[in-house]
Amino acid sequence: MKTRAAVAWKAGEKLSIEEVDLAGPKAGEVLVEIKATGVCHTDAYTLSGADPEGLFPAILGHEGAGIVREIGAGVTSVAVGDHVIPLYTPECRQCKSCLSGKTNLCTAIRATQGKGVMPDGSSRFSIGGKPVLHYMGCSTFANHTVLPEIALAKIRPDAPFDKVCYIGCGVTTGVGAVINTAKVEPGSTVAVFGLGGIGLNVVQAARMVGADKIIGIDLNPARETMARKFGMTDFVNPDVVGRDKVVQAIQDLTDGGVDYSFECIGNVQVMRQALECGHRGWGMSVIIGVAASGQEIQTRPFQLVTGRVWTGSAFGGAKGRRDVPKIVDWYMQGKIAIDPLITHVLPHAQVNDAFDLMHKGESIRTVLTY
Amino acid sequence: MKTRAAVAWKAGEKLSIEEVDLAGPKAGEVLVEIKATGVCHTDAYTLSGADPEGLFPAILGHEGAGIVREIGAGVTSVAVGDHVIPLYTPECRQCKSCLSGKTNLCTAIRATQGKGVMPDGSSRFSIGGKPVLHYMGCSTFANHTVLPEIALAKIRPDAPFDKVCYIGCGVTTGVGAVINTAKVEPGSTVAVFGLGGIGLNVVQAARMVGADKIIGIDLNPARETMARKFGMTDFVNPDVVGRDKVVQAIQDLTDGGVDYSFECIGNVQVMRQALECGHRGWGMSVIIGVAASGQEIQTRPFQLVTGRVWTGSAFGGAKGRRDVPKIVDWYMQGKIAIDPLITHVLPHAQVNDAFDLMHKGESIRTVLTY
Repeated sequence: MKTRAAVAWKAGEKLSIEEVDLAGPKAGEVLVEIKATGVCHTDAYTLSGADPEGLFPAILGHEGAGIVREIGAGVTSVAVGDHVIPLYTPECRQCKSCLSGKTNLCTAIRATQGKGVMPDGSSRFSIGGKPVLHYMGCSTFANHTVLPEIALAKIRPDAPFDKVCYIGCGVTTGVGAVINTAKVEPGSTVAVFGLGGIGLNVVQAARMVGADKIIGIDLNPARETMARKFGMTDFVNPDVVGRDKVVQAIQDLTDGGVDYSFECIGNVQVMRQALECGHRGWGMSVIIGVAASGQEIQTRPFQLVTGRVWTGSAFGGAKGRRDVPKIVDWYMQGKIAIDPLITHVLPHAQVNDAFDLMHKGESIRTVLTY
Repeated sequence: MKTRAAVAWKAGEKLSIEEVDLAGPKAGEVLVEIKATGVCHTDAYTLSGADPEGLFPAILGHEGAGIVREIGAGVTSVAVGDHVIPLYTPECRQCKSCLSGKTNLCTAIRATQGKGVMPDGSSRFSIGGKPVLHYMGCSTFANHTVLPEIALAKIRPDAPFDKVCYIGCGVTTGVGAVINTAKVEPGSTVAVFGLGGIGLNVVQAARMVGADKIIGIDLNPARETMARKFGMTDFVNPDVVGRDKVVQAIQDLTDGGVDYSFECIGNVQVMRQALECGHRGWGMSVIIGVAASGQEIQTRPFQLVTGRVWTGSAFGGAKGRRDVPKIVDWYMQGKIAIDPLITHVLPHAQVNDAFDLMHKGESIRTVLTY
């Protein structure tokens, strides 16, 4: 079939809307009509050429929602007409990682996904007979895409696509880091470094699980108002307290340090602050932000010997097929907010404008609709 | 009263056996006759002058066992005649840390202990009317010493002092890191970096809890035989596999990395290897070794974002009054071995020979008896 897609021909160039050939789903695969997709920093990172693993030409996009239109042989967990969210972290429920009960990092299709192809080693997308690659196993910048069954979360049919698409990445990354990775308990103290789309989701998840004190840290004073609406109780601006006094400021607010901290920026110096503002004996720091290639984190080992825990989280530690439908329910029940985070909705054809809004810092999240 | 003690008058000098004045126990304090004491690297570190927090003159030693000879007002948890092990990490059961259930790092007497004095701010030791400081709240290089009640673990009376004194530091540090900090499960894979006194205790605790594969890493091939007796299943010598290929060698032995690793050396480069040999998704690395002052650990944040956990352990995460008697029981039941680790037993007067044996690498542990 033919479909419309925004194609990334080369690193650093604008996307181009093209008519693309899409082969039907093979065994274990599913054809999905994408109804809406978010535009995420990870798409921009790959498009910029800074991602050493970026491949071109490709159809980017990994934060979508849509409807199953066709299923391949042997597909049993979704049916035509089901509403779904594509998962860049699949959940096969069979591999060593899935069975460990300790991680969401399913390895079933990792090798081929990293190469921009389906598990059989080929792409379903092509233009003029030449293959165009998949991206993060999703390619939600195409109106129709093919995914393995294990990379689809079936969601309730009354959830609006142009909101819950954000659960395909940003919401789950933030909320999941709180509930799956850190397992924040009621009454905890929490520090959130970076109050962008991820950080705000961390803030609201910390509120949802009953944290007592939720400290937001951001250089941008404009972030304070929105963050307070999401549950932030205290705001620390490093330029106000002094950039080298952030740890002290947080310790002063919390009788010695926070129980949990989250780095939602990707800055290795901030990652260190996030660790060191943790309470002696148990403070756990979760790295969510993606640092630039080659950068390293650093601290004195004494910070860990005295009981702090340094870890990280990808896709919020969420097992997508299990957890994404649950987060969709929480959104529909009003337990978590998404609408205020989606600052812009544009038609798919304006995908490049979405990147411009992101780079200018004008959007928290832009959603494209088909 | 008068007692005999090895006094450290100055950093870098040999200890000197002196007759020392010891004031009796005040309220909440206990006078203990030390019957045996281990000589630990931490004593040597402080004596060398490299410890920025080292204070002199002081009576070193923190790995002892003895008998309660007198109790101060209000002491209820031990009685005259009880056998006890002094605890450099006390357990008050009242402070924020003790009550957290998340750490063993009791803070009840931390400030005064760090200054070499009792909780009332004074020392019980003196010579010619001039105070001599306590060390780590223990000072087991004195034949008699005074400790707060909360810093004493009551143990069974049939346990031999010259063996179980080692539970006062080294044994509990290694065993506790496995059972309290990492909480290693049956069937786990484990890597132990450094097969000295601490590492061997990690090895035997990993065996005790049912680990499947216990990989020891040491530059000294002579360590292999003893470590295998303690439960090591595989030996990696970095000089044989290549010092930059240790992580790969461990991944090859374990289908991608270990579930748990322990750094028992204090080398920041090894701490990095210990983290990076952990399995993607869940590998937890516990730092036990104490690095030189000012040194830092370093890694790519990607190691943590993909699910590894970096933490550390002091006194094996053990709550001493609760856990030390239990480990004494395990020794008496034959579940853990101590005898082969105590390579030398010397009279107290030969304390300086014990340091020489340590520096020459000839001893695993030397115990001094009174």
